Amino acid sequence: MAKNLYFFDEGDGSNKKLLGGKGAGLCTMAQLELPVPPGFVITTEVCRRYYESGGKLPGELMDEVGAAMQKLEKLTGKHFGDPNNPLLVSIRSGSMLSMPGMMDTILNLGLNDETVEGLAKRTKNERFAYDAYRRFIQMFGKIVLGVNGKKFEEAFDGHKHKVGAKLDTELKAEDLKEIVRQFKQIIKEEKGEEFPNDPHEQLRGAISAVFKSWNTKRAKEYREFYKIPHDLYTAVNVVTMVFGNMGPDSGTGVAFTRDPATGKKTLFGEFLFNAQGEDVVAGVRTPLKIAELEEKSPQLYQQLLDIAGKLEQHYREMQDVEFTVEQGKFYMLQTRAGKRTAQSAVKIAVDMAEEGLITREEAVLRIDPKQIEQMLHKQVDPKAKGQVIAKGLNASPGAAVGKVVFDSEQAKEMGEKKEKVILVRPETSPDDVGGIIAAQGVLTSRGGMTSHAAVVTRGMGKPAVVGCESIKIDPNKRSFEVNGVTVKEGDTITINGSTGEVILGEAPLIEPQMSAEFEKLLSLADEFKRLQNWANADYPQDAKRARELGAQGIGLCRTEHMFFEEKRLPLVHQMILAETEEERKGALKKLLEIQKGDFKGILKEMNGLPVVIRLLDPPLHEFLPKYEELLEEVIMRRMSREKPAELEAAEKLLKRVEAMREANPMMGLRGCRLGITRPDINEMQVRAIFEAACELKREGRDPRPEIMIPLVGHVNELKVMRKQLEQVAREVMSKHGVDVSYKFGTMIEVPRAALTADEIAEFAEFFSFGTNDLTQMTYAYSRDDAEGKFMFKYIEQGILDFDPFQTLDRKGVGKLMRIGVELGRGRRSELEIGICGEHGGDPESIKFCHELGLNYVSCSPFRIPVARIAAAHAALRAGEAEKQRYL
Amino acid sequence: MAKNLYFFDEGDGSNKKLLGGKGAGLCTMAQLELPVPPGFVITTEVCRRYYESGGKLPGELMDEVGAAMQKLEKLTGKHFGDPNNPLLVSIRSGSMLSMPGMMDTILNLGLNDETVEGLAKRTKNERFAYDAYRRFIQMFGKIVLGVNGKKFEEAFDGHKHKVGAKLDTELKAEDLKEIVRQFKQIIKEEKGEEFPNDPHEQLRGAISAVFKSWNTKRAKEYREFYKIPHDLYTAVNVVTMVFGNMGPDSGTGVAFTRDPATGKKTLFGEFLFNAQGEDVVAGVRTPLKIAELEEKSPQLYQQLLDIAGKLEQHYREMQDVEFTVEQGKFYMLQTRAGKRTAQSAVKIAVDMAEEGLITREEAVLRIDPKQIEQMLHKQVDPKAKGQVIAKGLNASPGAAVGKVVFDSEQAKEMGEKKEKVILVRPETSPDDVGGIIAAQGVLTSRGGMTSHAAVVTRGMGKPAVVGCESIKIDPNKRSFEVNGVTVKEGDTITINGSTGEVILGEAPLIEPQMSAEFEKLLSLADEFKRLQNWANADYPQDAKRARELGAQGIGLCRTEHMFFEEKRLPLVHQMILAETEEERKGALKKLLEIQKGDFKGILKEMNGLPVVIRLLDPPLHEFLPKYEELLEEVIMRRMSREKPAELEAAEKLLKRVEAMREANPMMGLRGCRLGITRPDINEMQVRAIFEAACELKREGRDPRPEIMIPLVGHVNELKVMRKQLEQVAREVMSKHGVDVSYKFGTMIEVPRAALTADEIAEFAEFFSFGTNDLTQMTYAYSRDDAEGKFMFKYIEQGILDFDPFQTLDRKGVGKLMRIGVELGRGRRSELEIGICGEHGGDPESIKFCHELGLNYVSCSPFRIPVARIAAAHAALRAGEAEKQRYL
Repeated sequence: MAKNLYFFDEGDGSNKKLLGGKGAGLCTMAQLELPVPPGFVITTEVCRRYYESGGKLPGELMDEVGAAMQKLEKLTGKHFGDPNNPLLVSIRSGSMLSMPGMMDTILNLGLNDETVEGLAKRTKNERFAYDAYRRFIQMFGKIVLGVNGKKFEEAFDGHKHKVGAKLDTELKAEDLKEIVRQFKQIIKEEKGEEFPNDPHEQLRGAISAVFKSWNTKRAKEYREFYKIPHDLYTAVNVVTMVFGNMGPDSGTGVAFTRDPATGKKTLFGEFLFNAQGEDVVAGVRTPLKIAELEEKSPQLYQQLLDIAGKLEQHYREMQDVEFTVEQGKFYMLQTRAGKRTAQSAVKIAVDMAEEGLITREEAVLRIDPKQIEQMLHKQVDPKAKGQVIAKGLNASPGAAVGKVVFDSEQAKEMGEKKEKVILVRPETSPDDVGGIIAAQGVLTSRGGMTSHAAVVTRGMGKPAVVGCESIKIDPNKRSFEVNGVTVKEGDTITINGSTGEVILGEAPLIEPQMSAEFEKLLSLADEFKRLQNWANADYPQDAKRARELGAQGIGLCRTEHMFFEEKRLPLVHQMILAETEEERKGALKKLLEIQKGDFKGILKEMNGLPVVIRLLDPPLHEFLPKYEELLEEVIMRRMSREKPAELEAAEKLLKRVEAMREANPMMGLRGCRLGITRPDINEMQVRAIFEAACELKREGRDPRPEIMIPLVGHVNELKVMRKQLEQVAREVMSKHGVDVSYKFGTMIEVPRAALTADEIAEFAEFFSFGTNDLTQMTYAYSRDDAEGKFMFKYIEQGILDFDPFQTLDRKGVGKLMRIGVELGRGRRSELEIGICGEHGGDPESIKFCHELGLNYVSCSPFRIPVARIAAAHAALRAGEAEKQRYL
Repeated sequence: MAKNLYFFDEGDGSNKKLLGGKGAGLCTMAQLELPVPPGFVITTEVCRRYYESGGKLPGELMDEVGAAMQKLEKLTGKHFGDPNNPLLVSIRSGSMLSMPGMMDTILNLGLNDETVEGLAKRTKNERFAYDAYRRFIQMFGKIVLGVNGKKFEEAFDGHKHKVGAKLDTELKAEDLKEIVRQFKQIIKEEKGEEFPNDPHEQLRGAISAVFKSWNTKRAKEYREFYKIPHDLYTAVNVVTMVFGNMGPDSGTGVAFTRDPATGKKTLFGEFLFNAQGEDVVAGVRTPLKIAELEEKSPQLYQQLLDIAGKLEQHYREMQDVEFTVEQGKFYMLQTRAGKRTAQSAVKIAVDMAEEGLITREEAVLRIDPKQIEQMLHKQVDPKAKGQVIAKGLNASPGAAVGKVVFDSEQAKEMGEKKEKVILVRPETSPDDVGGIIAAQGVLTSRGGMTSHAAVVTRGMGKPAVVGCESIKIDPNKRSFEVNGVTVKEGDTITINGSTGEVILGEAPLIEPQMSAEFEKLLSLADEFKRLQNWANADYPQDAKRARELGAQGIGLCRTEHMFFEEKRLPLVHQMILAETEEERKGALKKLLEIQKGDFKGILKEMNGLPVVIRLLDPPLHEFLPKYEELLEEVIMRRMSREKPAELEAAEKLLKRVEAMREANPMMGLRGCRLGITRPDINEMQVRAIFEAACELKREGRDPRPEIMIPLVGHVNELKVMRKQLEQVAREVMSKHGVDVSYKFGTMIEVPRAALTADEIAEFAEFFSFGTNDLTQMTYAYSRDDAEGKFMFKYIEQGILDFDPFQTLDRKGVGKLMRIGVELGRGRRSELEIGICGEHGGDPESIKFCHELGLNYVSCSPFRIPVARIAAAHAALRAGEAEKQRYL
């Protein structure tokens, strides 16, 4: 039979699953011969048995605990329940994964009416002893006995009022004795039983209570949100109490082994002489910064420094520790990996690799790509002193400044005038999507991390603070109130989606910065990754930025964005609506010159690197005025009976637009279908690309265009278009007398293309998975409609685990991609395959692309750093899995 | 080395590939000891070598031909080029597959200035001899020497005019001699060489010319249309000429061994005493019906009857023969399988099976399901004597009567008034689709079998005659003229898309009939098929019809059709737009009663058989007024400033409809997405189904509802809906205290459903492939848009070989189906799988469904017979393939 409990000097510190994080840390420290108060861990397995037996402690447990307590007594020389030299313990929960504040801890267990006196004597502080006692009764009453905590608070406040005390510290020992009496009375009244004086009874109750706290509603909800399995269970740590308030040579502190904000290798934390943890919390005395300790107590500081060094050596990770000094003796109470900012994480990883503490691979793996994402958002300048008026959930990272508006219509109106607004709503619904798009960020007073506002803004990469319950919105007054401050429509606020803070006025924002360590980390990542990182960029300046951020090519240059530019649109209209061949040719000729300039710019920036240019993709009617608007105009002109010539023109245009309308434009006349039915536009584009490339070549540069034909679903589409367009390319090159290195290829974005990739590879030198459209078709989701109409509900109801437009759906879309890769490479082994959908910047999706053996992932320039780390992770993790397989 | 030529008594009659159809027939007949004029076949391999060497006859060929001619001389006692007893031969092409009229034949080869005299003497008919000679020169000149045929026709007509002859027969021998002179002159002038007198030179030229005729433009186009491989090549038959015009004991005839119109077992054909084939064509004399021959010449008749019997015994198939009697001696010139009407084909197959001539399996395989299709269209009553005014291509089968209209707008206008119209256009374009839909049929003066009109009408199952070049359309006069007849807009015509005929006025049409033999054939088919045939039916009367036609279940009952009915629509509106819970519930309650009636009717008709009922599928906005119409109304009301209350109502409705609009409704809020976001409608439907079923059950009937949840793409959609709806089902059954046998399942119409079919099968008792939507998603084709905007162009340009909405695309959609079947059955081996897209009635697609191992195919009731035959074919063909594999 497995052991139910382990003393700290015998438990396996690497087995967090069995001992919980806190217990494992205590065991490790004990075995590293660091000073740890004597104690033991009751394993998570016991907790499992507790639940399996319907909430009963295993029969043998309390006997074993009794024996362990005797051993503790021997180790400490104190005795459980001994009025002269009482052994007191803390009972602390601790699961494999940290769930801060979710489960219960009971301190000072072992106190009763007799031992409290012994404590008073030994600490020479009656007030402290009775304060500890009343706290213990309060905790025990609430946690173990289930008394409503308010009862204790009311009694406590009642007595304070009675004796005219404002602060808790103004209460004297006598007051605390009275409160102890009242607390015991409350327990008797509420529960019909006495507060247990027997320390063993206290211990049994406390252990059960900690186990029980694993399954409180809030703990379960927490685990569900963070996807922590419910069957990890908690361990119970029974630890000898040590006291930091036993004189000037005592004290208590918390420390990080490195600076969690900057990552600097220096102790960081706080220390309070002659105090217990509660005093730090009460905030009456200002703690010392750990750095100051160096001066005030060099010996203590050195001791802490040594311990920190040993812990880092052992854990190879920055630690967050708690410790107490009791009459000059140092006690470590906890150690765990320290939470840190993204910046700090990067510096620590890079430094530790340079220190030789961890390998370069580990340094890269230490950084979650999602942390990188945070670093790439705008942040509130930490140096700024803004007035934080409220705090909600940090639902979507980044910071935004704008004028407060209370409905989506207004957000859209002001957004159209280029005003920056923050949409403030009790909660959002699909009707608000337009408003969210128009706003800089969103603030809601209701809803959690999976509320509509949270899901939608995260999807859009827009900052949001949600569930900020302290703000009271009054839609009629068009204002909200919070802690006495009233914010009216039009007032400026700043929201910090990374922290959940709401700041009055315009806080200064800082652009994301790339530190030297960050650059180092990215270089490390590049060493390990196998996937290349390309960028989606439509303009030279985007290409430049992408290259600076490490892009190794352009995976998607969307030519339609060039068509939509205001100055060009009239030419595009002319081309589409031309009534004569000449008119059409004239418009195309002008567009040719413009496009040549566009392509020259991008090819120049990406000199020597591949640039995948997608030929015109959207249906032509997208470039024309909207049907509804024209209809409205025509009806109004008809009714007014003025300007018949203009009516006629409008009617004509309406008719043209009507003829081009489509029931489902997403699946209509676009992409290569347009290319085949109206070849002149693509020919113009290919001519422009090769004119640009040839000119650059003649200037001594190295342009590498790759022509991408979109929406191919049948090999013949590609075959026919490639033949016709390659003809144009050859013609231009021969005119210029130069050879440009180029490729022809296609997007794989129609399911049929993936399913027949072998045939298609015959005519394609590259594939680029267009996973946005591929996801639309595979799910039969029109993204425009799904996100507004049912996607939120689907995620809320758990029908979908994730939004497949954000993270690649391995089971469906991924299966098609796998088929596409296998068939494509089967036919053409050197086929270049990448992905240019939005998934190309999503770490989980990048991992999948690595597994599929793609050549590159392409994403928007600002996400390139995330993607580089994710690519390295994918390679390293795959390597680990590979090793695992051979073990 | 392979033999280049085979005498008829040595060639392998079963090797049509080597000898061509005609040659193989002659060989077979010779070896069956039927009277065949001596001759030989030059193989298709020689033709292949001819092309492979760039158009040269193999070096050794003419020597071998020379030797064969000597053998012929021996066999016939005549001599090639002998002025006294000349051997004359015909040179006939003949490929493996018949290409009627596509390749060339040369008769009377061996005639020259000397031998013509010998022929005149032996036939005692100088006129005949010279007529044969001038025809030979004309054919030879045109075909072998490449002289423009018009030159000969002009000279011929010129001489006729000169001598005042109206008919060719009025020309005397002298005239024909003069024409021969002129013809030879023409050849000399046009080609600078003399007409060759040397019969061997004639022979060589004729053989080359036949080979060359394999690759004329029209022959190539024909092969492309009928998908005949270009590398079959033609053989050349050299056959001793026999003459049916050598006196009253001579004659010529054609005959079918059974009646090709009715299938009756009786000789059918024509015979002309003392005549050659040309005389039959010239039509001056009326031939005898073969039946009459029995009386006029019982001996000949008996001889023919014997030969017919032997041929049928040998070929086990109805034959179409040509024969000539020369001075009492019978000669068979050709035999081949006879073309026949669908009715006839069915009777012949069934009769032959009963006669023991063929097996029952063969009888079923003899009937092409496409023939069945023809039988199911309305036909022009063959007894009717309509005035056929023109003949075009029989582009889309069936007959239609209607008033002539010349543009699509008018067709639509009149169509809306329920008038029957025939759309007459020079050719159609995608703009005409609306007009085609409104019309009963289409007639065009231009275009071929793959023209827009042909493709679109075949797709719609609407009759069409295209490329009817003799009609001259005058769009201004709104009329067309043909052979002196003028047809004006509004005049009634009948088109026969099965024959290509255009008939003036209203010809009587007959409904498709099911003959006794047809019923027998279908019963035979049922014995062999493995697939079940189910029907798509929304109403009791459709279900009844389907059951009569052999349906074994209903594979798709679309409940939305019930919603669209005029009387119900207001209730549906009320349900959708309800502003209070009560209003909505009230509307649902009324709909419940109505739906219960619908389902009761269908379940009753299909007593004991499964009925798959699909829950509401389309987006709700499809039931509401169109956005554009509402917008128009609102604008007009706003401008008129009258009736503000009505304006307000209209504005409100507009707003509701606007909120429900979708960018791509095909991929929007419909199917199970609607079910999940608005569960009340589906609950009402399931309640209605089970109320109906329970009532029937209590009446002692056996209803078998299967509830189909549409558009599932993720297993959770099905899981959630099934749970909720099965709850309703149980509730209703428990209320009635009966158990209904039912299933829950889903459509597989979203690619992701096929890709994750294993997960989905966990919660589905049946799958039904919705291949219409699956094809849309797999290709990313919006059918509405594709068919109007680019599908025609794609088929015309050969980008698509076929319309994937008509025939299942095996490579793409089919691959998804295969994945779906394998994964689904892998998880649940007894999973019932069918198909309910339009492909369920397409023979080629049914074959694929058989191969996939589906349980059933479901199609519209009237196509059930086609599908039954196709299902049997699939099973029999698969069996054959299986046998093949084990041989």
